[in-house]
Amino acid sequence: MRIIGIDPGTGILGFGVIDVTKDNKVRMVTGGVITTPAHTPLDERLEEIFDGLTDIIAETKPEIMSIEKLFFSQNVTTAISVAQARGVAMLTGRRAKLPIAEYTPQQIKQTLTGYGKADKKQMQEMVRIHLGLKDIPRPDDAADALAAAITHSMMTRAL
Amino acid sequence: MRIIGIDPGTGILGFGVIDVTKDNKVRMVTGGVITTPAHTPLDERLEEIFDGLTDIIAETKPEIMSIEKLFFSQNVTTAISVAQARGVAMLTGRRAKLPIAEYTPQQIKQTLTGYGKADKKQMQEMVRIHLGLKDIPRPDDAADALAAAITHSMMTRAL
Repeated sequence: MRIIGIDPGTGILGFGVIDVTKDNKVRMVTGGVITTPAHTPLDERLEEIFDGLTDIIAETKPEIMSIEKLFFSQNVTTAISVAQARGVAMLTGRRAKLPIAEYTPQQIKQTLTGYGKADKKQMQEMVRIHLGLKDIPRPDDAADALAAAITHSMMTRAL
Repeated sequence: MRIIGIDPGTGILGFGVIDVTKDNKVRMVTGGVITTPAHTPLDERLEEIFDGLTDIIAETKPEIMSIEKLFFSQNVTTAISVAQARGVAMLTGRRAKLPIAEYTPQQIKQTLTGYGKADKKQMQEMVRIHLGLKDIPRPDDAADALAAAITHSMMTRAL
């Protein structure tokens, strides 16, 4: 099974594609970010996300999208900005006919580390270990997207 | 000039299309809502908004989209839900090659009533008067969308 994980955002949207082998191991196919320039009209930025993500899906051919669910409590302005990009990312997955799984940050932390309040460093180290990589994937947004993808592989394994 | 106004939301998205005549009067072309069923996966709902709004734009052929800007301070969960739909609505306008104007709720209130803290009833009554209608447009979301469209007509007139 091939999974694309998404860490949504308007300025930077992380993506990470993994394969799950028959013996339930995961390996990284690719990971990276779509960045859109600040001081550019929002509709242009959202279209860049739509087009960029559509291309990545066409190239990597994942079978399912796993996307972080928003669960903000602090900055409403940031939440609105991320949510606008998240809506577009989910639409992109839908139009590419991918099933979409959603996980809260806490579910992702709990699944990867066994601890729902793990910090960023712990999370990134677990992503590195799960994928058998020498270094932590960069930038952070790509690592977060890979974490969402790994979470889906582990949640479906558990079923 | 023909303007489509949008009041974003996932459960109900309001739209309202107006024409601005050469003597700067506005008349309503159409108005209504796109509703998406609760308890349906979010990606399906977002696609219904994308497809529905694409159809409405194709049918009514507006030259510009005027959309309410989010400016929440209370319920973050609602803000996230509205923002996801708003991102998709803006993408829809962009893909239909419409320029997009954004106005905060306060700008819309100020422009229509001269008072930035006007209540819902006052706003709806001003929409009715501006458009020369016998009754207030229903439902509320359609009236709010028409208010966004009228605001753009008045802001550009002022320039």
